[in-house]
Amino acid sequence: MTQGRRGPTIVVSNRGPVTFSRDEEGERGHSRGAGGLVTALNAVLRRSEGAVWIASAQSEEDAAVAREPAPYEVEDLRVRLVEHDGAAYDLMYNTLANPLLWFVQHGLYDLPRSPRLGDDTREAWEKGYVPVNRNFARAVAETVGDASSSTILLHDYQLYMTPLFLREELGDRAEGAFISLFVHIPWPEPDLWGILPNYVRRGVLESLLSADVVAFHTRGYARNFMETAARVLGAEADVEGGTVRYAGREVWVRAYPISIDPDEFGQLAGSEAVLEQERFVKDLPGRLLLRVDRTDLSKNVVRGFEAYGRMLERHPEMAGGVTFLAQLQPSRGDIPEYAAYMEAVGRTAEEVNARHGTDSWRPIELFMQDNFPRSVAAYKNYDVLLVNAVRDGMNLVAKEAAVVNERNGVLVLSEYAGAHEELGEHALTVNPYDLDEQADALHAALTMPEDERRRRAEALRETVLGNTIDDWVEAQVRDIEAHRGHRG
Amino acid sequence: MTQGRRGPTIVVSNRGPVTFSRDEEGERGHSRGAGGLVTALNAVLRRSEGAVWIASAQSEEDAAVAREPAPYEVEDLRVRLVEHDGAAYDLMYNTLANPLLWFVQHGLYDLPRSPRLGDDTREAWEKGYVPVNRNFARAVAETVGDASSSTILLHDYQLYMTPLFLREELGDRAEGAFISLFVHIPWPEPDLWGILPNYVRRGVLESLLSADVVAFHTRGYARNFMETAARVLGAEADVEGGTVRYAGREVWVRAYPISIDPDEFGQLAGSEAVLEQERFVKDLPGRLLLRVDRTDLSKNVVRGFEAYGRMLERHPEMAGGVTFLAQLQPSRGDIPEYAAYMEAVGRTAEEVNARHGTDSWRPIELFMQDNFPRSVAAYKNYDVLLVNAVRDGMNLVAKEAAVVNERNGVLVLSEYAGAHEELGEHALTVNPYDLDEQADALHAALTMPEDERRRRAEALRETVLGNTIDDWVEAQVRDIEAHRGHRG
Repeated sequence: MTQGRRGPTIVVSNRGPVTFSRDEEGERGHSRGAGGLVTALNAVLRRSEGAVWIASAQSEEDAAVAREPAPYEVEDLRVRLVEHDGAAYDLMYNTLANPLLWFVQHGLYDLPRSPRLGDDTREAWEKGYVPVNRNFARAVAETVGDASSSTILLHDYQLYMTPLFLREELGDRAEGAFISLFVHIPWPEPDLWGILPNYVRRGVLESLLSADVVAFHTRGYARNFMETAARVLGAEADVEGGTVRYAGREVWVRAYPISIDPDEFGQLAGSEAVLEQERFVKDLPGRLLLRVDRTDLSKNVVRGFEAYGRMLERHPEMAGGVTFLAQLQPSRGDIPEYAAYMEAVGRTAEEVNARHGTDSWRPIELFMQDNFPRSVAAYKNYDVLLVNAVRDGMNLVAKEAAVVNERNGVLVLSEYAGAHEELGEHALTVNPYDLDEQADALHAALTMPEDERRRRAEALRETVLGNTIDDWVEAQVRDIEAHRGHRG
Repeated sequence: MTQGRRGPTIVVSNRGPVTFSRDEEGERGHSRGAGGLVTALNAVLRRSEGAVWIASAQSEEDAAVAREPAPYEVEDLRVRLVEHDGAAYDLMYNTLANPLLWFVQHGLYDLPRSPRLGDDTREAWEKGYVPVNRNFARAVAETVGDASSSTILLHDYQLYMTPLFLREELGDRAEGAFISLFVHIPWPEPDLWGILPNYVRRGVLESLLSADVVAFHTRGYARNFMETAARVLGAEADVEGGTVRYAGREVWVRAYPISIDPDEFGQLAGSEAVLEQERFVKDLPGRLLLRVDRTDLSKNVVRGFEAYGRMLERHPEMAGGVTFLAQLQPSRGDIPEYAAYMEAVGRTAEEVNARHGTDSWRPIELFMQDNFPRSVAAYKNYDVLLVNAVRDGMNLVAKEAAVVNERNGVLVLSEYAGAHEELGEHALTVNPYDLDEQADALHAALTMPEDERRRRAEALRETVLGNTIDDWVEAQVRDIEAHRGHRG
C-alpha cells in the first residue's frame, strides 16, 4: 500500500467514511461514520498516502459531491462518491444484499417456508446488484487512470460482482493491479450457499475468483468458501494451502481476523460522556451481566434472556445479585421479520422481569436505542459479557469490551461467533441453541473465583492486544507484497 | 452374509417387518410392514439364510412376542422383538429422533427461533435414546450367542448409539464381528450437525466410528459425514478414499444408493387394485402432473403448488390442459409444525384452484390420505413427476415411478434429493427455493417434444434398472467380504 512508482491504493465499500449535508446557510458540512468497518478501513488509509476511498453516495449532498471532480478532499481523506440510480440501489440493498445474502450467509432462513425466490430475485440481481457493482467498477477504473499498477481493496457482500467487472473495465491495466475482496460476514457451507439461484451462486463465485485475494475473518469461513468454489464451480481448491485455481488463475484465500484500535477505546473509556454513563451503570444492583448488539436476528437475544431466566429459576440465591443490561442498537426495523423478532425480545424481557423481579430489582434492563457511551461505560464494568449469536462474522464487541473492562469480566461466547477462533479458549463456550448450557455458563461465570476470572480476563486482553487493527492491516500488506512477488 | 462357519447375519431396525396382533378369538395374527426400508431389508434377508431381524416391539402383541424365546419364526422370517420401557421409547422417538435428529439432518429448523435445547434434550438422550439403544445392543449380543464371527447390519437414525454399546456388550466377540450402520436420511454439513448439544454431537460420532462401515445413500452425505467427524472429533478423514481413522480404528464410509425392486412394482402395476384406480387417474383432464409424498416439512409441497400457480399465470393456454394430482400420505400430524404446514398445503391448493379453476377443471387434485394403489396407477400415467424436496435422503418415488410409467413421463427433480446424484442428468433439475425456476421447469416438462421425453424416460428407467435393490445388497456384501479380507 505504499505509493512509490505504483499506482494508487483504492479502498471501496458501500458505506463511506463521511456523509455530506448542507446546513441552513447552504454550507456543505459532513459527519464521520462510525462502526467497526469504518475504523478498520481508516487504519488501512493511515498506511497508504494518497489513497482514495470510493463509496456509494447516501445523502442528497453526497450525490452533489459525486458529480464534482473526484476525489473530493475532506479532512485527511480523499473520497470519491458513486451515485447510483435510486431504484437500482434499493434493489441491490433491500432485496439482494439484505435480506438474501445476509440471511443465506448467517443461516437465518426458515427453509421449509422461506426464501421464496423467483423473478423478483432475478430482477433485483440484474437491475440492482449488477448495475451498482458495475458503477463501482467504473469508478475504480477511472480512479486508476492510466496507472499500470494499483492496489484495489474491495469490501463486503454488497460488492461481490465488482472484481469481475473491474477486470473488464481495466482491460490491459488489470495485469498490474492487485485486487482483493474482503468478506466481513460468515461464509456458509456449500449446501447453504446453494439456496441461491444459480446465476447468483455461480456469478458471485466467478467474480470473487477473478480477484487476487479473497479474505475472511476466520479460517472456517475461508475453508467454507474454498469448498463452495470446488463444489459449485468445480474449482481446484487446496484448502490447507489456501489457494483456489479456476479459469487459469490462482486465487489466494486468506483469514485476517479483524480487530479494534485499543487506543481509541482507551480514550473513549476516559471520555466525559462515558464517565457520565458510568454513574448509571454502577448504580445497577448486583453483578453486571452485559450484552451489546445490533437488533439483528442473528444475535440470539431471545434465547439469551430465556437462558438467564432459567438460571434465576435454578439459583434463587442469585435474586437481586445480578442485573442483565442489554444495550440493543436498532437496526433494520423496517424488515417485518426483524420487527417481529424485536417484539419477541421485549416480551421475553418482560416475562423474565415479571417472574423474577421485585420492587427493588429489575432482572433485565433492556434498552433498544443507540447509546454508545453507555455501552462503553458498561464495557468497563461488566462482570460477565454474553455473546451468544447463532452466527456472527466476527463480533467486535467481545474484543472492544475485553480491552477496557476493569473487573476481570468473564466472556460467555457462542462457538458460532467468528471471534471464537481467537478468544474461545479463554471464554466459556456455549452452543447458541442450548438454553440450559447457556444458563449454566452464565451461573458459572457469575460465580467464578476471582483468580480464574483474572487469568481469563488477562488472556483475553492479551489476545486482543496481540492482534489489533494495525496488525490486521499489516498482515494484509505483507500478503499483498508477497502476492506481487509471487506473480513476479 | 453367507453362513458357513460364520455366525449369524443380524439385521436391526427400529421398525420391523411384521406387527403382531391378537384377533377376537385370541389367535395371534400379523401384518407385514410396507415402505422402502422394509422392502430393502427383506432383500438383505433373501441373501442370508437363517438371518435374524431385530426390531422394536410396537404393539401389545409384539411385546408378548418379545417375551417369548427368540427368534420367533413367522412366514420366512426369523424375528426378535425388543421390548422397551414405554416412556424411554417415547423420549427416544418423539423428542430425540423425531424431531431433533430428523430436523437437524434435513435442515428444517428456523434457526433464529428453534430449536430451544436444554435439560429436556438431555433427559430424552439419557433416559430415552441411550437405554433404547442399549436394549438393541443387548438383543444383538444375545442373538450372536457364542459365535465368534457375525454380521450385524444396523439401520438408521434411531440406532446411532448401538454400535458403541454393541462393542461393549460383545466384549471379545466384537473382534470377529462385522458391524455396519446405514444412515437412510441426509447427513448434514458440520455447522448444521453442530446445532446438537455436545453430548449428542460427539456421542453419535464416536458410536458410528466404532462400526466397521458407516453407509449412506449418496457420496455427498458420506463426504459430509467424514468432514463432520474431522471437525467435531478431530478424526483423520480421507474423503477421497472413504476412510476415517479414529481411536486407533479405520472405518469405511461408503455410499450405496438405495433402490427398489422393479419386479415388485411391475406386478403391482398390473394388480386389480391399481387397474381400478387407473380409471380415476385417466379421467383427470389434460396432461397429468403428479407428486407422491409423505406429508413431511421436507417435501416442499407448498412451494410446488405456488410454482404451478405461477406457471398457469404465465401460460394461460395451459388452462384445462393439465391436472396436478398430489397424493400425500399423512405423517406426523401430531407435531404442531406439521399440522400447521399441512394447513398451508390445503390453503395453497385452494388458492390456486380458486384463481385458475373453472366449472369443468380443477387445477389441483389434492388427496391427504393413504392410497398406494392410486399412487401406482398415477405412476403409470403421469406426464410430469415433481420431486422438489428441500432435502430428501433418497426419494424412492422418483425410482418407483420411472420403472412403471407408460407415458415417457418427465422428472422434475430437486438438486437436494439424494436421487439427484443418480438421476439428475436425465431430469429437469430445480432449486427447491426458486419458485419461478420450478414454474419454468414444469412448463418445459409439460411441453417437451416427444422424442426428448422418450430419450429422458428411457435413460431414467435404465438407470434405475441398472441399480436395483439387489444391486444395493450386492454392493454391501462385496464390501463386507472385502472388509473381512482387509482385516485378515
